[in-house]
Amino acid sequence: MNCNVPTDICFSFEGFCARGGKTDEHRDGWGIAFFEDLGCRLFLDDNPSISSPIAELVKKYPIKSRNVIAHIRKATQGEVGLENCHPFQRELWGNYWVFAHNGNLENFEPNLIGPYQPVGATDSEKAFCLLLQILRENFPNSKPSLEKLRQVLQTIMDIFSSYGIFNCLLSNGEYLFVYCTTQLHYLVRQAPFAAAHLVDEDITVDFQALTSQEDRVAIIATIPLTDNESWTAIAPGKLLVFQDGIPILSET
Amino acid sequence: MNCNVPTDICFSFEGFCARGGKTDEHRDGWGIAFFEDLGCRLFLDDNPSISSPIAELVKKYPIKSRNVIAHIRKATQGEVGLENCHPFQRELWGNYWVFAHNGNLENFEPNLIGPYQPVGATDSEKAFCLLLQILRENFPNSKPSLEKLRQVLQTIMDIFSSYGIFNCLLSNGEYLFVYCTTQLHYLVRQAPFAAAHLVDEDITVDFQALTSQEDRVAIIATIPLTDNESWTAIAPGKLLVFQDGIPILSET
Repeated sequence: MNCNVPTDICFSFEGFCARGGKTDEHRDGWGIAFFEDLGCRLFLDDNPSISSPIAELVKKYPIKSRNVIAHIRKATQGEVGLENCHPFQRELWGNYWVFAHNGNLENFEPNLIGPYQPVGATDSEKAFCLLLQILRENFPNSKPSLEKLRQVLQTIMDIFSSYGIFNCLLSNGEYLFVYCTTQLHYLVRQAPFAAAHLVDEDITVDFQALTSQEDRVAIIATIPLTDNESWTAIAPGKLLVFQDGIPILSET
Repeated sequence: MNCNVPTDICFSFEGFCARGGKTDEHRDGWGIAFFEDLGCRLFLDDNPSISSPIAELVKKYPIKSRNVIAHIRKATQGEVGLENCHPFQRELWGNYWVFAHNGNLENFEPNLIGPYQPVGATDSEKAFCLLLQILRENFPNSKPSLEKLRQVLQTIMDIFSSYGIFNCLLSNGEYLFVYCTTQLHYLVRQAPFAAAHLVDEDITVDFQALTSQEDRVAIIATIPLTDNESWTAIAPGKLLVFQDGIPILSET
């Protein structure tokens, strides 16, 4: 989720959470990261989201954030364990960066010579560490312009996707980068707001009653979370950058 | 807390939590980190612990861990905000490191030239970043022996404490390093277990009913959490290393 004003994710999380063992088979752990200005709350659990006390808290406690990344895991590489749950978090240029990956990179054994070393055993965390290492090599001292950052990320992610499926979400709390290899969909909710109904749970929320005229919220998901809204499929090989609830700099 | 078997911290956390706005004035946020093998769960909140829904979860959900670091904040440097809540977390040598500081370092403006940059505005996070930078400079590729690590940490922490009060806790999930400038106390609970009564809440737990003969748990706190057990004050300038619920390598 990427928004122009701090927004809670309770509605979307209800449907998302069901995919962690109820309506889908991603039951090998889950996690969610909420940026609040520079700070970041990261909840991780190696229990299925459908039976996690921490997921219950997240459903009920409306944490307001402008950038949220959530992930439910179906283990491919790396055992079921807390250290292998996404999103992963590291610090670069004095910002926290948070990363989640859907897919599987095969024969991906990068030479990680920089300060970012994986703690767990997933291909995903290796990819994240290499990505940060390359960003630091390209821009050692401070964050570059968004356009430069996007160009380097596009190159990195194109290479990663040559190793296998690499659908990913990446955020520093300011931007949400979204790269698609096979499937990712997005939706922008803005005025006039309407009611939305979840795919995975019989729950409807009328956003008109909960929003103000200026609110804008982008939701990005592998598979659409609602069945009565118009989701856009992201093209394979495309890197989108979301800020303030809309894609920007999206032409590549 | 440092233990030889994964243990929940629910009892100690009840008393600790009360100090975040009820029996003490540390109401500017709080946090707690639980290591589970290589993984780490970090809960942070800029609300007082006494009124935090996340603290309620932590009280009730018995997360079992061998190394836990918790902190309640009274802001000295840096505003009240999530980015300034302890414990702080970074990765070094493929392990997560978690750090919490009690005290205040004055005129502490280190030259942070390495990969660890503060996200928030506290003296504490600067100290943590410098500490990791120096460890990386001394041991660029991998974790050294515990004795070498302890020696360098002792030097670093002695220097930090020349800038002001520097009581701190530091863990990589394997060891818990404890440095005292002014006040820190510890307690080792082991067989024969007895009942313990909190200072801050009228709660008693009979550990004999909850433990096995081999369990050993060290609790370290600024001020003792219980009033019927024998706490040991740590001497100023001393760095203790806890493993498996007891101090090791403690002679300096």
